[in-house]
Amino acid sequence: MRKNLCLCGFGNVGREFVRSLAARQSGILADGLDLRLVAILGQGGGIYQKSGLNLAEICNLPAGSSALRSLTGLWSEEMTGVRGIAAAQAHLLIEATPTDILTGEPGLSHFRAAIANGMDIVTFAKGPLVKEYRSLQQAADARRVTIKASGATAAALPAMDVGCYSLAGDTILQFAGILNGTTNYILTRMAADGLAYEAALADAVTAGIAETNPRLDIEGWDTASKTIILANALMKADLDLADIQVKGIQHVTAGDIRAAQGRGEVIKLIGQAIRTERGVEVTVGPVCLPLSHPLSAIQGTAKAIRYVGQAMGEVMVSGGRSDLAGTAAAGLKDVLNLYRRRK
Amino acid sequence: MRKNLCLCGFGNVGREFVRSLAARQSGILADGLDLRLVAILGQGGGIYQKSGLNLAEICNLPAGSSALRSLTGLWSEEMTGVRGIAAAQAHLLIEATPTDILTGEPGLSHFRAAIANGMDIVTFAKGPLVKEYRSLQQAADARRVTIKASGATAAALPAMDVGCYSLAGDTILQFAGILNGTTNYILTRMAADGLAYEAALADAVTAGIAETNPRLDIEGWDTASKTIILANALMKADLDLADIQVKGIQHVTAGDIRAAQGRGEVIKLIGQAIRTERGVEVTVGPVCLPLSHPLSAIQGTAKAIRYVGQAMGEVMVSGGRSDLAGTAAAGLKDVLNLYRRRK
Repeated sequence: MRKNLCLCGFGNVGREFVRSLAARQSGILADGLDLRLVAILGQGGGIYQKSGLNLAEICNLPAGSSALRSLTGLWSEEMTGVRGIAAAQAHLLIEATPTDILTGEPGLSHFRAAIANGMDIVTFAKGPLVKEYRSLQQAADARRVTIKASGATAAALPAMDVGCYSLAGDTILQFAGILNGTTNYILTRMAADGLAYEAALADAVTAGIAETNPRLDIEGWDTASKTIILANALMKADLDLADIQVKGIQHVTAGDIRAAQGRGEVIKLIGQAIRTERGVEVTVGPVCLPLSHPLSAIQGTAKAIRYVGQAMGEVMVSGGRSDLAGTAAAGLKDVLNLYRRRK
Repeated sequence: MRKNLCLCGFGNVGREFVRSLAARQSGILADGLDLRLVAILGQGGGIYQKSGLNLAEICNLPAGSSALRSLTGLWSEEMTGVRGIAAAQAHLLIEATPTDILTGEPGLSHFRAAIANGMDIVTFAKGPLVKEYRSLQQAADARRVTIKASGATAAALPAMDVGCYSLAGDTILQFAGILNGTTNYILTRMAADGLAYEAALADAVTAGIAETNPRLDIEGWDTASKTIILANALMKADLDLADIQVKGIQHVTAGDIRAAQGRGEVIKLIGQAIRTERGVEVTVGPVCLPLSHPLSAIQGTAKAIRYVGQAMGEVMVSGGRSDLAGTAAAGLKDVLNLYRRRK
């Protein structure tokens, strides 16, 4: 079976996805699936080749879509945004643009164009699903296309897979997760080394763990975005950021940490969803956990999520590399699970 | 989409599967999948109804296929074994017979009949896959049918799902698991309460955790069976029980446990597989783990497995109810993941 892929966005994640695909393409083909990357859409244009782009050539380009212009024989100003999605005539959109969780754009427009064109979607971008989960899913169902979002929900930690696939048919009563590596690193450093919040944050920036502008992480919005997508997908909630309480870790002090330790507890930034009589309630914020709680042992940049299923009980998954290679591999995994023969 | 199911075996697990299906059938239908249980094959005969059996009626029967004889209008001596599989004209065989890990029977013959008839298989029985993994998988591939084995590989702990689905496309370098609840319970009691092996085993029998004849568990064969199936399925190994070293916990003494504790370690029964230059090496036996090892924290009847993927890194999953309801739900999950629209 041949499937044509259209990648939108050629930043670090988009390029790493191409590298991941290049490394595995022959093995995937041997298993009977012929994945061809036919288009990469960037800003102001992109590249297209109907028979499939030469991945080896693309892997060596610097990240950033302006680098695509050097492939002069393939470059076209038409290959951008919704116009490019329609022109690519692919089976699948891989959305790897920078995301805005308030507007959902530019991914939101890309999703709508892809669905209108009968394309499946594998997304790294959270914005579209945070902003418009229900309407996008309804549109996808109506067109019989599938949206897969491992890359937007903790990537190599299979948070979505376990909820959607391993607990298929069960009723998820609640989940709670440590879904952001940067904040868990900061809290771990504060607890283990007695650092003040500012010092732990500075350390995370120096170590390349926190972004230079880490507000989305430390104020809880990254965790909130992942929590909302999971709650909407797995518990049939219909929530966006305006519906939930979000607290970050920016006001957690060394004194708070010490006080928790004195009680035999640790502070973790938890995104959780609970099914109640009033519907699904989602909260995001620092929580004091006893050391006996399984999430209390998740250290450093590691992530984890613990589900409670009505029939299958507690299922917790932890780990998954937090780097670019792990993220790209999670996106490629979604592509395979869309198209390979069921296993 | 309508799919006809043929259940082989009506012991506790088979009946619980029917109950699980009955409880969820209308919800599954609302999602577009019409699952009809058309046959239950027992010893000396079974029951069949082309339009689908009345599940409510069957849920209330005692376990054991002789109970099926009371449904006189449906009972037929033809509905047993390979003859019944052919006669049922179903899309899917659910194999829930007691298993013999040395011969693979009776499931092995059932698997071959199902594949020959173009049926998919969801199995709770380990025997066929322990004995003949490679030849069965090749036959299934040739007939384009799928074998799903969550129920044979730790059930509600999604050991197979995480390796097969969440790490799709990645290369699994190694895995190690606590895959048997009875032995982990015994080791936990010995460590936590200072019990001798015999006392902890007696306690497990009294608590209904260990079977009256727990040799398969305590001598490591249950763990070995699950480990072999996972290694064959996920690491392209071609192993059976004769190829591997299996040690159980029957020779672990209270003194061994205390000595480990003195070194800051715990003893766990671990099934592991490692990719080496010589191929995939599988071992099963008691292992001393430092308290910092994530598997060291798995207590009582809980189970867990930790994978190392080349790209996605360490991924560990733990939990999943060890009771009949959890087991049945894991089988139903496999059925849904075979036939529902991909999500």
